[in-house]
Amino acid sequence: MSSDGYHMSSAAFRRHGHDLVDWIADYLDGVEQRPVRAQVRPGEVRAQLPTAPPTKGEPFEDMLADVDRVIVPGLTHWQSPNFFGYFPANTSGPSILGELLSAGLGVQGMLWATSPAATELETHVLDWVVDLLGLPERFRSDGPGGGVIQDSASSAVLCALLAARHRVRGDAGHQAPGLNIYTSHEAHSSVTKAARIAGFPADAVRLIDTDDHHAMDPDALGRTVAADRGAGLTPCMVVATVGTTGTNAIDPVRAIGELCRREGVWLHVDAAMSGTAAVCEELRWIHDGLELADSYCFNPHKWMFTNFDCDCFYVADREPLIEAMSILPEYLRNTATASGDVIDYRDWQVPLGRRFRALKLWFVIRHYGVEGLRHHVRAHIEMAQALAGWVTADADWELAAPAPLNLVCLRHRAGDAVTQGVMERLNDSGDVFLTHTRVDGRYVIRVSVGQTHTATRHVQRLWDLLRRTADEVQGTA
Amino acid sequence: MSSDGYHMSSAAFRRHGHDLVDWIADYLDGVEQRPVRAQVRPGEVRAQLPTAPPTKGEPFEDMLADVDRVIVPGLTHWQSPNFFGYFPANTSGPSILGELLSAGLGVQGMLWATSPAATELETHVLDWVVDLLGLPERFRSDGPGGGVIQDSASSAVLCALLAARHRVRGDAGHQAPGLNIYTSHEAHSSVTKAARIAGFPADAVRLIDTDDHHAMDPDALGRTVAADRGAGLTPCMVVATVGTTGTNAIDPVRAIGELCRREGVWLHVDAAMSGTAAVCEELRWIHDGLELADSYCFNPHKWMFTNFDCDCFYVADREPLIEAMSILPEYLRNTATASGDVIDYRDWQVPLGRRFRALKLWFVIRHYGVEGLRHHVRAHIEMAQALAGWVTADADWELAAPAPLNLVCLRHRAGDAVTQGVMERLNDSGDVFLTHTRVDGRYVIRVSVGQTHTATRHVQRLWDLLRRTADEVQGTA
Repeated sequence: MSSDGYHMSSAAFRRHGHDLVDWIADYLDGVEQRPVRAQVRPGEVRAQLPTAPPTKGEPFEDMLADVDRVIVPGLTHWQSPNFFGYFPANTSGPSILGELLSAGLGVQGMLWATSPAATELETHVLDWVVDLLGLPERFRSDGPGGGVIQDSASSAVLCALLAARHRVRGDAGHQAPGLNIYTSHEAHSSVTKAARIAGFPADAVRLIDTDDHHAMDPDALGRTVAADRGAGLTPCMVVATVGTTGTNAIDPVRAIGELCRREGVWLHVDAAMSGTAAVCEELRWIHDGLELADSYCFNPHKWMFTNFDCDCFYVADREPLIEAMSILPEYLRNTATASGDVIDYRDWQVPLGRRFRALKLWFVIRHYGVEGLRHHVRAHIEMAQALAGWVTADADWELAAPAPLNLVCLRHRAGDAVTQGVMERLNDSGDVFLTHTRVDGRYVIRVSVGQTHTATRHVQRLWDLLRRTADEVQGTA
Repeated sequence: MSSDGYHMSSAAFRRHGHDLVDWIADYLDGVEQRPVRAQVRPGEVRAQLPTAPPTKGEPFEDMLADVDRVIVPGLTHWQSPNFFGYFPANTSGPSILGELLSAGLGVQGMLWATSPAATELETHVLDWVVDLLGLPERFRSDGPGGGVIQDSASSAVLCALLAARHRVRGDAGHQAPGLNIYTSHEAHSSVTKAARIAGFPADAVRLIDTDDHHAMDPDALGRTVAADRGAGLTPCMVVATVGTTGTNAIDPVRAIGELCRREGVWLHVDAAMSGTAAVCEELRWIHDGLELADSYCFNPHKWMFTNFDCDCFYVADREPLIEAMSILPEYLRNTATASGDVIDYRDWQVPLGRRFRALKLWFVIRHYGVEGLRHHVRAHIEMAQALAGWVTADADWELAAPAPLNLVCLRHRAGDAVTQGVMERLNDSGDVFLTHTRVDGRYVIRVSVGQTHTATRHVQRLWDLLRRTADEVQGTA
């Protein structure tokens, strides 16, 4: 790291790096005091930036000052313990440091040969996660299956679909006329997006009805599959969700899996947020029947203290995935690949290049240990269950759906206008951040408990704010 | 950042963060002395790791010790100035710090509303890059076009293909029977991979012949397009390459673009590595005709001192891209999106979630300034041109292809066995790292000059090693 030319010298990197580490610690120490939602209107951030890139280099101090002045006020603070929106994207000290190390090493893990440790640590840590979550043994890398880190559950379901299509159609052709995909009305939009990307027509995605708890109805699935078979169509993949985005509904994986086995249809299970719950043995019922799945994913970058991006994607049989994705030009040929003794993760994903993302997951698991992860996941669930209890006991509020884990869907009994009014007023205030969905057509506030430092007092305060704001909205305060 | 439960305390994060910054500076200071290629055999890294995740958390010092003991010996050091393989994936102090800041802030930029500054800085910096590279004005965000950061050029070409397909077929259906894609024999494998992912049959990718310099022959392209039209097929997209992976050949974008305009075919230009050269005004000829393109990408994570992942992808018209990708479930609806006044980058990419990657590119451009980037790009090209001159003047070695920029393709006149033997012996030695390709069927060493700290002395040493090793391989030393 010589200080030749315009490069940042080693001494300067150390100085600025220390300053930035302290800046981040200060930011995270103080983030609870900031308004959670960004306080800017469209265009306000850009208006504060110069229109052209600088001709001459600028000091690092100026950039950090601009982060304070321009960037931070334009952020919605996902790492605030008062952030209850969407699903969490939590992070932690060891994860941030793992990401820093990955950037510092700057190696490419597209092939085993391009940096063997990047591939082997990833395979190893994904085998660890099979233990950690009590996942089926068939997802381990020592058999025909194995795991890989994807950027997101969206990319995972796309890869699953490509493998499923390949298993049905093989090399003969990659087009999919007559192939259908099945998921519930409550499934994530990434299923439809994956189908569209992969070239399936819009009507190839069959949205299956759900039961009273918003989970997929396996009987309805069976009827649709049978009707499609009868019409000469070919069921290609079913996507079951463990923890839907709307209400955290948990599809009955075992019943769906048994159907998929009988029908020879690929089953992908998307547990993007809720999979982390399985670190606790008493919560592994969420994965009941998972040994019947062909692929599975969950996101440590949602609820397992690992910063985005880190989705763990598993297949029971890696062959159709690799066959669907592999292209080997001359400039990537090498002895290790030719030997067949190694994993080349480029064939497990859409992009060719890849960062060394296993480092941060390794750091997180080693820092917390299994018992630390369990402790914090249980704590989040206890907080959510406490809130669900308060809602149930309250005369003015009600649960809009069961709350099996760490997501609580609630609404005001006075109707949508009050529920929506409360949420918008709270978001405008910056005191907390919430997002909504609709359940059975009615407006519902989703309270997603999962930010790293959210504690009981934050959830208590949220409940106070919800009630008080409802009074204000109704003019009864 | 309270020290509740098992979380890393703020004080510990500062201490470990400072240590890790110093560790990275030490690593980069000393990386030149390390064997460039990893010195391990398959399985050696994994064999040193415990088979199960730890029950109890471990100290950060232990993890860093394991990085030294297990991980570093298993790396191929892409940041060594003696790394000449593949294309570079260079990095720099400001980029590493930008990545650290992104991890520390931990915000999601999937929608404008989820963190406005993440979206607006990205749009702004991508407009800066239009200035920086002298790109066509139509790629700016203030008209119908605009730029976005993708993880890689592979994802960029996939997005381009989805937009191109949408422009031809619209909402009527996403399948592509009869749609064809055109690129040269020398194009990157990502074109074929994108076609396969998107559901195009294998024969839909037409590989066009190249001229003596390995660039696409526009006349051959015209003949193939005309023949396909005659057969009732529909040309959907042409991919031109500015700097092929094999030999850095530069396709004639203007001639190809004129044909695409006449035919109404989407033109995507992939300048993944070589695009960075356009920071220098005297090298902007590589983009001649780019105003005829519908989309374009280059990778700051290859040659512009920005760590992976950072691909800048531009479209002249964002509408078909967004229409091809957009799905809006209830839980993502918000006022800003509904207003149409903001960009939601989730509709510009495959995944939903996204990191705040613009920070590192912003830091790099501000740290170096336009003149700093020009200085280092010119220096790399001068080194490569010096090497090309030495090869040309040598009795035993020859250039296998023209070297327009920073890639030199060379072979020994004694034949493939000597060329391959030299490369393998050098890679085994760890003194330098090189990769190969085949040109006109013959084995060729690619010398890719672009690591941040590669200086003239490293290229001189490489040339000495090549000649000396050739003597050894031939038994004449």
